[in-house]
Amino acid sequence: MMKKNLGPVNALYPMPVVLVGTEVAGKINYINIAHVGIIDMTTISISMGKVHHSNKGIKENKTLSINFPSEDMVVEADYVGVVSGAKVDKSKVFESYYGELKGAPMIKNAPLSMECEVIDILDVPNHDVFLVRPINTYCDEVVLADGKIDMAKVQPMFFDMPQRKYWKLGEAFANCWSIGSNYVK
Amino acid sequence: MMKKNLGPVNALYPMPVVLVGTEVAGKINYINIAHVGIIDMTTISISMGKVHHSNKGIKENKTLSINFPSEDMVVEADYVGVVSGAKVDKSKVFESYYGELKGAPMIKNAPLSMECEVIDILDVPNHDVFLVRPINTYCDEVVLADGKIDMAKVQPMFFDMPQRKYWKLGEAFANCWSIGSNYVK
Repeated sequence: MMKKNLGPVNALYPMPVVLVGTEVAGKINYINIAHVGIIDMTTISISMGKVHHSNKGIKENKTLSINFPSEDMVVEADYVGVVSGAKVDKSKVFESYYGELKGAPMIKNAPLSMECEVIDILDVPNHDVFLVRPINTYCDEVVLADGKIDMAKVQPMFFDMPQRKYWKLGEAFANCWSIGSNYVK
Repeated sequence: MMKKNLGPVNALYPMPVVLVGTEVAGKINYINIAHVGIIDMTTISISMGKVHHSNKGIKENKTLSINFPSEDMVVEADYVGVVSGAKVDKSKVFESYYGELKGAPMIKNAPLSMECEVIDILDVPNHDVFLVRPINTYCDEVVLADGKIDMAKVQPMFFDMPQRKYWKLGEAFANCWSIGSNYVK
């Protein structure tokens, strides 16, 4: 066989980078998280090592925000993933705004944000996996096309563990649930 | 405020498209899934509507495979997401191979595949969320760079629900846990 066996490597990358907004003991904090997922149409998973400062605030408030940094925010996005809110004040890295929920500050410069309620927490070794439900989704008008979010305009970043790189999104090249009709047996 | 409120929209897209390989009643089946996630370093979530034919096989075998279709497989990748294995034989859409696990056929043409064991199933409304652990990860030699998976060579596809499009991966443009050191307060 020509395949190479790398052993038990988690290769599910690149994943979208989001900045999770919280309040910990009343202070705004942001952290870079890419270990995210979709649980069902209305539920998102956010997996965060138990060591993180943000987890305390999420458990206290039962809320968080999910913000999409655009490519040009990569320095700040990486920075809030490297330093801990337990030691460094990250409340002024971004200008914040609020929607309906307490404890879920959002990033004004981020083109797309969701304020979310925590509906459950999976307790897995070393991680809290927050299952959250978007209550409101906010975006800049400029990222909409025909009233729908156009990810080309959001310019999201993706994270890749094996190479430890951030990636840009490429071009849209096919329509879902459509191009498959060209399949010939 | 200049932000537009779209209501409770799940905007966590684009997500990587994978083809999940199963055996249902002994027959090979593949399905296109993008509602995936990372639970912790060694655990992946695969969310599948309970209506899908594949779920029966996964529950029976407690295994599945995760295959990354490259861009040039988009027609076949979309096709296996549109037709059901309950009605159509999808066992010949791809040439299959096996690793160690029974019930987890992998796709020879896919540049990157994981054979996985199911370690838990989250029972959420209308969905089975399979929590799986990669046992072995296989790739074509050509997608490796210095022994690591180079996603530029895998050429993965991403799925976007709002616009129902498949996207290409763009270029790597920054190093993680590194570029943030350029942040100036």
